[in-house]
Amino acid sequence: MKVNVLKENLAKSLNTVGRIVSTKNSLPVLSHVLIKTEDGRLKLASTNLEIGITYKIGGKVEENGSITVPARLFTELVNSLPGDKVEMSLNDLTLKIMSGNFKAEIKGITAEDFPLIPDIKESKVLAMDNKTFRDALKLVSFAAAVDDSRPVLSGVYIVKEGKKLTFAATDSYRLAEKNITLSKDLGTDFSVIVPIRTINEILKIVSDIDGEINVYLSDNQISFEVDGVELISRLIEGQYPNYRQIIPEGSETKANIKSADFLNILKVAVLFARENGNTLSIKINPKGKIEVNVIASQVGSNESFLDADVTGKGGEISFNGRFIMDYIQNVNSKEISLEITGELTPGIMRTAEIKDYVYIIMPLRS
Amino acid sequence: MKVNVLKENLAKSLNTVGRIVSTKNSLPVLSHVLIKTEDGRLKLASTNLEIGITYKIGGKVEENGSITVPARLFTELVNSLPGDKVEMSLNDLTLKIMSGNFKAEIKGITAEDFPLIPDIKESKVLAMDNKTFRDALKLVSFAAAVDDSRPVLSGVYIVKEGKKLTFAATDSYRLAEKNITLSKDLGTDFSVIVPIRTINEILKIVSDIDGEINVYLSDNQISFEVDGVELISRLIEGQYPNYRQIIPEGSETKANIKSADFLNILKVAVLFARENGNTLSIKINPKGKIEVNVIASQVGSNESFLDADVTGKGGEISFNGRFIMDYIQNVNSKEISLEITGELTPGIMRTAEIKDYVYIIMPLRS
Repeated sequence: MKVNVLKENLAKSLNTVGRIVSTKNSLPVLSHVLIKTEDGRLKLASTNLEIGITYKIGGKVEENGSITVPARLFTELVNSLPGDKVEMSLNDLTLKIMSGNFKAEIKGITAEDFPLIPDIKESKVLAMDNKTFRDALKLVSFAAAVDDSRPVLSGVYIVKEGKKLTFAATDSYRLAEKNITLSKDLGTDFSVIVPIRTINEILKIVSDIDGEINVYLSDNQISFEVDGVELISRLIEGQYPNYRQIIPEGSETKANIKSADFLNILKVAVLFARENGNTLSIKINPKGKIEVNVIASQVGSNESFLDADVTGKGGEISFNGRFIMDYIQNVNSKEISLEITGELTPGIMRTAEIKDYVYIIMPLRS
Repeated sequence: MKVNVLKENLAKSLNTVGRIVSTKNSLPVLSHVLIKTEDGRLKLASTNLEIGITYKIGGKVEENGSITVPARLFTELVNSLPGDKVEMSLNDLTLKIMSGNFKAEIKGITAEDFPLIPDIKESKVLAMDNKTFRDALKLVSFAAAVDDSRPVLSGVYIVKEGKKLTFAATDSYRLAEKNITLSKDLGTDFSVIVPIRTINEILKIVSDIDGEINVYLSDNQISFEVDGVELISRLIEGQYPNYRQIIPEGSETKANIKSADFLNILKVAVLFARENGNTLSIKINPKGKIEVNVIASQVGSNESFLDADVTGKGGEISFNGRFIMDYIQNVNSKEISLEITGELTPGIMRTAEIKDYVYIIMPLRS
């Protein structure tokens, strides 16, 4: 192998593929990054056996070849290089790196030992605007379960039916659902559960890339590809719960609330609510006030109120304050609405600024 | 107790006194902050039994009193309050906090249970410009030992003789010394060893305060006071080593080197030098080149060079690369000099931009 690449491109690709590399792994090659010439470009790849990332960059390939080198050392080395260009060549299993006044040699492991990252590019099921895709994922992913006690809940449910694309996530205490209408239909309908760790990686990797995202599907794997970067992941097997039945049809009381003011009050309230699992009592007064109350037997108590635009007869209900904060922080809208119907019916949160989007919170015993 | 204070002042004081509060302490009152009216002002205090911090803020004191409340909860509460003013009052051992639309109650512990922070204000030994004091501390503190295996080395040695003030620190592998000439002499000479944890706290606390710093001394304690904030700490007992004897009188070879370029090369070199305790070989070529070499049997090797302005016959020596990096990063000068004399004599680092300041590095076996 002999290649010349721009340092900037190499650093960027390593910072992306390096994200999922474990340094604690018992299998040394999993702490390595694969470097391989392919079709006149340089491909970098990493895998943690659940997720695989490949990144292709342009460069001058003078001689083909492949090797794996320790991801951390190589990434730090490239990030520290002062020059603009990096020349890499292979001498048996040692990678030579030259840049400006620098010369380094890194001992590698043969690319043959690197786990095969499957290629499922034959079955493209989605091609859409990356920002639209990313924004929808962000609006639901925070509601997924963070532990694996019920595996199907630790992922985002993605369903395509014709031109309708639905994203949903729930940890069984709260639920977020966002619908999108596709501008083009590639013809294949599907429903999959994508692990939340995969979703979080996608969100980070594609966060600053515009353009189109392509999604490919096989029996048990899904692949996302944007502008030369590809992430492939296993899918979660199992039946996603029929969550639609818990979404209330309507509500008795609705309050339109300024997000920033509500968030400020909630921040203080949850400090006091730590000892009782973030349980806050929320009273909606039909005359246009919201009252938030916490009684914490060990540390003290907190009460606060703010103005709101209320329709309906009002009522009192207990919620996990963190769940309301999560919603406000993720939707990033000036005003949100909270709808309630008695103290045993789930609350509904919406914002006029985001269409086809609903957030449901289960009530708590106060 | 009944007081009215500005939220901004209260938040600032809590963020300072809260720095040393442990939440893991077995004695609950040590995770609390003391709040006490004193001479028409509000005093906040914290201690970890080694360091004590007091902070006085102005306000309207309507009724005297004192209480201790959980530092973390109270700090987070105050930081989250939306109003400009905070009203606090005491009902037995419960602190009531009112601000805008907020009302909270925090259960406290009586101030009588709070450890006494000694007052040693009678023996002022230094009064000088805070920035000069802080800058000198920064130039030596990074060379102190981070572990306590030799207690005297885990502190900064401060010596005053007439108008000469010396700061020194060494972990026995490198040494930094900075001298200052005082503009006024309060009359008391002293030599003390201040724990490095205390020094680091002082540097953080006084980092953005201008004006004068006052230093007070008792038999085994030292106190630093700047603009209403006071930090009191125990001193380290014992004899500081006679470090002057290891500072070489002159040198055979001197290289003037551009700091930024040298730092870039060192950053890469230490990546390879991890496995051998950061040992780098540095060759000063009398024709005006510096060569840095690392051979790491496990990961590979690295060599790099840069131009330098060399006087003397040149030579080769091994140093801990991190120690040179520490120096460059702390002095923040465009150019530094490295002086060597054979491979067994300590190296000397200086910069023309900082007077009365020397840094010594012990050589390593290559």
